[in-house]
Amino acid sequence: MPRLLETSLGVVNVGLAQFAETIAAAGGAVTQLEWTPPAFGDRATGMALARLTNHPATEAANTRALAAFLGAAPVLRGVGAARSTLPGMGERMILHAGPPLEWARMCGPMQGAIAGAILYECWARDAGAARALAASGQIAFDPCHHHGAVGPMAGVISPSMPVWIVEDAARGARAYSNFNEGLGKALRFGAYGADVLGRLKWIETKLAPAIGAALAPLGGIELKPLVAQALIMGDEVHNRNAAATALLLRRLAPALVRARLPADDLAQVLDFIADNEHFYLNISMAMCKLMLDAAHGVAGSSMVTAMSRNGVEFGIRVSGLGDRWFTAPAGAIDGLYFAGYGARDAALDLGDSSITETAGFGGFSMAAAPAIVKFVGGTPEDATANSMRMRHITLGEASTFQLPALDFRGAPCGIDVRKVVDSGIEPVINTGIAHRDAGVGQIGAGITRAPLACFTQALCALDAEANRS
Amino acid sequence: MPRLLETSLGVVNVGLAQFAETIAAAGGAVTQLEWTPPAFGDRATGMALARLTNHPATEAANTRALAAFLGAAPVLRGVGAARSTLPGMGERMILHAGPPLEWARMCGPMQGAIAGAILYECWARDAGAARALAASGQIAFDPCHHHGAVGPMAGVISPSMPVWIVEDAARGARAYSNFNEGLGKALRFGAYGADVLGRLKWIETKLAPAIGAALAPLGGIELKPLVAQALIMGDEVHNRNAAATALLLRRLAPALVRARLPADDLAQVLDFIADNEHFYLNISMAMCKLMLDAAHGVAGSSMVTAMSRNGVEFGIRVSGLGDRWFTAPAGAIDGLYFAGYGARDAALDLGDSSITETAGFGGFSMAAAPAIVKFVGGTPEDATANSMRMRHITLGEASTFQLPALDFRGAPCGIDVRKVVDSGIEPVINTGIAHRDAGVGQIGAGITRAPLACFTQALCALDAEANRS
Repeated sequence: MPRLLETSLGVVNVGLAQFAETIAAAGGAVTQLEWTPPAFGDRATGMALARLTNHPATEAANTRALAAFLGAAPVLRGVGAARSTLPGMGERMILHAGPPLEWARMCGPMQGAIAGAILYECWARDAGAARALAASGQIAFDPCHHHGAVGPMAGVISPSMPVWIVEDAARGARAYSNFNEGLGKALRFGAYGADVLGRLKWIETKLAPAIGAALAPLGGIELKPLVAQALIMGDEVHNRNAAATALLLRRLAPALVRARLPADDLAQVLDFIADNEHFYLNISMAMCKLMLDAAHGVAGSSMVTAMSRNGVEFGIRVSGLGDRWFTAPAGAIDGLYFAGYGARDAALDLGDSSITETAGFGGFSMAAAPAIVKFVGGTPEDATANSMRMRHITLGEASTFQLPALDFRGAPCGIDVRKVVDSGIEPVINTGIAHRDAGVGQIGAGITRAPLACFTQALCALDAEANRS
Repeated sequence: MPRLLETSLGVVNVGLAQFAETIAAAGGAVTQLEWTPPAFGDRATGMALARLTNHPATEAANTRALAAFLGAAPVLRGVGAARSTLPGMGERMILHAGPPLEWARMCGPMQGAIAGAILYECWARDAGAARALAASGQIAFDPCHHHGAVGPMAGVISPSMPVWIVEDAARGARAYSNFNEGLGKALRFGAYGADVLGRLKWIETKLAPAIGAALAPLGGIELKPLVAQALIMGDEVHNRNAAATALLLRRLAPALVRARLPADDLAQVLDFIADNEHFYLNISMAMCKLMLDAAHGVAGSSMVTAMSRNGVEFGIRVSGLGDRWFTAPAGAIDGLYFAGYGARDAALDLGDSSITETAGFGGFSMAAAPAIVKFVGGTPEDATANSMRMRHITLGEASTFQLPALDFRGAPCGIDVRKVVDSGIEPVINTGIAHRDAGVGQIGAGITRAPLACFTQALCALDAEANRS
């Protein structure tokens, strides 16, 4: 002790910065270490975290869940009508994004998209009648996730809409998504004008059958190699799908020609895909859903298998916790707005597309897509930092999906509820921004985070399950 | 002085490292600064460099040349037969890559490609007769560059071959390139088997007419936006053209359908483009040639307007020095080889494709294409370092062509002969590697550098011109 005091003293202060400030003000050398107690000092959550951290049963379950996720072999198999393709789809049913939600609580763009779907199905004559029908209780509303499907933004799927079929070549399981309509005025952003409905009808009657005819003789398209290439070509396959769409078109174009469609229809189909750099998004989402479903249902696993938003609530599902949703209020989005719009016009966080982040893409793979910052904001350094930060809350890296900017290390994947609660690092999500009112459409894009409260609830539920068994 | 010796001493050693080593061996603190005298200590070159450095006439000329380069507006206008399209093309003439070279001195792959072209033109019955005809003096050989054209590797163009036409919308000038045949056994790598010749005939009779028919109603395709997108998608548009090819196909596919070709031909055309990620390379080269031609012929300018190799010599042309070539022996390539091949099998540096580096792409834009290192060797950090290093020898940056990994700064472009000689930094070039023998084909890809001797000669010639005027 006397010798210690003879040498010059340095101080490391852990936690509250005020202590360090006092020392610094008195001329002392002090290093401030950022630290917060686990579970933010909440005793019950902290105890649950302590019990589950390094628990052999949880570790083993997570190893199994991650292996199942990584072992899935998604193939774009074909297209089908929602009514005959989606498990449990009813004839007077409309699916939507996120956890369950009744009509009265839905946000503007979701109500707009549902009104549009009712008009598209010819269940009502005008928007007013459509909204009345929606409010009447005669239409069943259900999350896409409850029917093996995912949909971006409002995520509305009605019985006549065509859906992509992505199949796991390893297990035979399937996942589904609707078709992407392009940017701007689109049903998924709550627009339902005649142009929107006409395009949906063209997608149903021309585009989907053409693609179905092209895919059949190919026997499907393996999606992992395509996405791996797209990551090397600057996509994060959530808000940037320029490369994936071009690569898909490269595979589809010769097959579409061989399907011997009328030349005018064929040219329109090719134009439509060529003109929409987000065309691949919905296929990306169905692929992610399929891979995460493979990891779902492993008893004791703390791996997140879905993150989704309905514009009111953000919800997650966890491998070891069955069909339960753990929800918290949907957040706002920090983003870039189209000319004439701003944050006050924005709906809250919306859509199933955060399934891509759940699978390690989107915000988690931003290092692959420096150009995304021109769309969602920030700098290329931020993009790389986001990917590196997400490593702290994930179970592993997908060696199939390499990120060149991180020296070809794999995309961080398998969000661990425990790690999120322990570190306080919330999953980062790249997302579009819908206008808060029905009928307007997209007004920007940006970055948001999954609320910590979803993860603390799930952690306590995992702990309760572990104590019960 | 006494006070200096009372404090602890540090030494900075400039130049020869041996002096520093002695101090370090004696326990002294020494910082070694890498430095070599300008022009490597050659007095005459050093004096020429001193006269031209910051010379107002050279600066003004370079400003003009760079502005002309950046102001070019290249449009992919169409296709034509070499005989009727290339200025000065003769009926018994074969063009080749690099500076002028007689048959007897040509490397194996160039002789192989010329033999192949003679067979393709039906000027001889077999390879032996073709070589005899080539050696007889009855065929005129000329560099592609002397006819407004560029060709990768052997760069062989004969009268019946189709060529891409790239036109400057600003000036009406044109540049040309042949069609890319794909990887492996290809004429440009010196292979001339029946498969190679059959593919060349199909390119002439099916592919080129189809693309010509598709381009005509489009009125051409603007190339700058396409290349700008490709750079954001991981291409450097020399050895990686995956994105540019996909983006071109995205534009061409609907137009090809509208050209109402027979369905089988159309499907084959789409397959051919879709299966060859280097398809865009030749268009990239013609674009670069066109932009650099715009900068050529500015009296006093030290901007390099061509770098090219014929497998024996590396040659450069300079804006202010007319049609002269400044040559040095072609170098070897530091690369990755296909299985079963190694450096002893390799031809020396070959091809006009270094026109892409001359324009700021390829090795100069490697920061855009971290994945290229899997093809040419090195790490993503090396790729970025190469782009940053090339800034030291270039006149400016092309704001149109942004490199995301360098925080969206533009591709370094406009190589300045003076800066190369002053810094000793040789332009870096990504390139394919041909087998040294005729008939084999590509055996790898790698990185090489333009020899300094070309630049010192050009510098002295610029100095002589300046003294004369």
